[in-house]
Amino acid sequence: MKLKPLDDRILIKQSDAEEKTVGGIILPDTAKEKPQIGKIVAIGPGKILDDGKRAKMSVKKNDEVIYAKYIGNDVEMDGEKYVILRESDVLGVVEK
Amino acid sequence: MKLKPLDDRILIKQSDAEEKTVGGIILPDTAKEKPQIGKIVAIGPGKILDDGKRAKMSVKKNDEVIYAKYIGNDVEMDGEKYVILRESDVLGVVEK
Amino acid sequence: MKLKPLDDRILIKQSDAEEKTVGGIILPDTAKEKPQIGKIVAIGPGKILDDGKRAKMSVKKNDEVIYAKYIGNDVEMDGEKYVILRESDVLGVVEK
Amino acid sequence: MKLKPLDDRILIKQSDAEEKTVGGIILPDTAKEKPQIGKIVAIGPGKILDDGKRAKMSVKKNDEVIYAKYIGNDVEMDGEKYVILRESDVLGVVEK
Amino acid sequence: MKLKPLDDRILIKQSDAEEKTVGGIILPDTAKEKPQIGKIVAIGPGKILDDGKRAKMSVKKNDEVIYAKYIGNDVEMDGEKYVILRESDVLGVVEK
Amino acid sequence: MKLKPLDDRILIKQSDAEEKTVGGIILPDTAKEKPQIGKIVAIGPGKILDDGKRAKMSVKKNDEVIYAKYIGNDVEMDGEKYVILRESDVLGVVEK
Amino acid sequence: MKLKPLDDRILIKQSDAEEKTVGGIILPDTAKEKPQIGKIVAIGPGKILDDGKRAKMSVKKNDEVIYAKYIGNDVEMDGEKYVILRESDVLGVVEK
Repeated sequence: MKLKPLDDRILIKQSDAEEKTVGGIILPDTAKEKPQIGKIVAIGPGKILDDGKRAKMSVKKNDEVIYAKYIGNDVEMDGEKYVILRESDVLGVVEK
Repeated sequence: MKLKPLDDRILIKQSDAEEKTVGGIILPDTAKEKPQIGKIVAIGPGKILDDGKRAKMSVKKNDEVIYAKYIGNDVEMDGEKYVILRESDVLGVVEK
Repeated sequence: MKLKPLDDRILIKQSDAEEKTVGGIILPDTAKEKPQIGKIVAIGPGKILDDGKRAKMSVKKNDEVIYAKYIGNDVEMDGEKYVILRESDVLGVVEK
Repeated sequence: MKLKPLDDRILIKQSDAEEKTVGGIILPDTAKEKPQIGKIVAIGPGKILDDGKRAKMSVKKNDEVIYAKYIGNDVEMDGEKYVILRESDVLGVVEK
Repeated sequence: MKLKPLDDRILIKQSDAEEKTVGGIILPDTAKEKPQIGKIVAIGPGKILDDGKRAKMSVKKNDEVIYAKYIGNDVEMDGEKYVILRESDVLGVVEK
Repeated sequence: MKLKPLDDRILIKQSDAEEKTVGGIILPDTAKEKPQIGKIVAIGPGKILDDGKRAKMSVKKNDEVIYAKYIGNDVEMDGEKYVILRESDVLGVVEK
Repeated sequence: MKLKPLDDRILIKQSDAEEKTVGGIILPDTAKEKPQIGKIVAIGPGKILDDGKRAKMSVKKNDEVIYAKYIGNDVEMDGEKYVILRESDVLGVVEK
């Protein structure tokens, strides 16, 4: 991967529309903030705690995660779409 | 369950309209924020404390809980409706 | 009681209009936020402190308390009206 | 007193208009938030600190205090007017 | 002085218009918040720290200080104008 | 460099439009906040922690970084454009 | 200097328009918040930390600094213009 996230940020490769049913999960369009599915391609070193150490990240590379749609920054690399967001913005990990 | 919540988040299967009288509880439509009833199907590992450890979750799988309606993210899996929210958004547990 | 509050929340049975003069206390309609009187029927385990322990609750079951009107969530159980709110939203305890 | 304030709250008996010159102090109507004078009739146990202990209250019963007008909740007991507010909303104590 | 400020509050006797050039300092009317000059007549015991102790006050009685105009509460005592504000709202001390 | 950033701030030389494809990365114009690419030319000493020490900076001079467009302050030195922003506003480092 | 700043505040003598190119630095008028150049003439004792001690100031007297334009309070002394702001509002120090 060509981009290393800082702090507790993660880099996610957004799934295509047809991939949004991974594991039987469908993300409905509702009045609430619509979630997205994507695969983690890079993670940051973790958030700095009060004592200067870093908190352990709860997600890892290749995790398939659900996150809110209108959060984070879009980046395009080699023709693929990615989004950078903080670990705390990840709602859950899709288990296989 | 196919989705593992992060942090202090929980995954709740929303109750149907007729299930909203579980244990004799009725949730009235008032001027205040209307609560919902649902069953917990998965819980996260807990919130990270200042020392890097995690706080123990106060709820567990299969707990029937009351939570505010306009909080959290909707997810649909295998034709069933779920909501992901933080433990701190749960108002109380229905005792049997 | 069929509902167990979480965190530092308490479950209060709202007093009827005629009960609002308990102990000679009258709650006037003023420009400020109008308080309500009610009896505590269930309390949560207490707020989690920075070290992971819980703060002791300052109120107990059967306490008659005054609280601000437009705070908390309404719940109806077995035909009775209740409100769920945080201990920090309780203004004071009526002494007998 | 029939009402015991919680946390760092205090119960104040509002002074009548003619009492507002106690100790030669006059509270002018200005563009800024107008202060009020009143006598403390009951105090709470103090605010909970990070270690679970309580901070000592800086005011005591019978203290004559100045506080901002549009803060706190009005309560009427036995035909007298009271206000409940937090110690941090008290501006100063009138010395005799 | 008849009024004892609480916490980290101070009581300031506002300077008259002609006194606003004390030490050659002129406070211009600009687009930014206009500062005022006044003399401290009473100080509080200091702000409570996390361990329950109080922080030492940085100003003392008789200090001539500059503070922002639209902050604090006006009080009138014995025909003189005073303002009560927090130490953190004092911009600086005029040296002689 | 003629400008030394304070705290956890960094000074970044903004890349020209044609440089925005460094390492194959393209920053698309989307509805979300558009990120920029630039090279770090100076870094501050790090953020002050609660104990008075400074947190180690996660970026270093000459790092090529991605940051949100509408954050920070523009500065022009010797005919070149720079931006000053906080380390926490850096999204990620471009790896070579 | 006749004015001693409190806390982590500093007193800055604003540079004239022609001085804004000190060290080859030009501050452009852009859509972002425009920075100013000035010389520090007095500094406060530093911000109070949680343990009651003070953090060391990162700037010193005579430092030429860049700061955001619409922050701080204007003061005029002996016909010269000054601005009082907090150390955290200083973007960087101009090196010679």
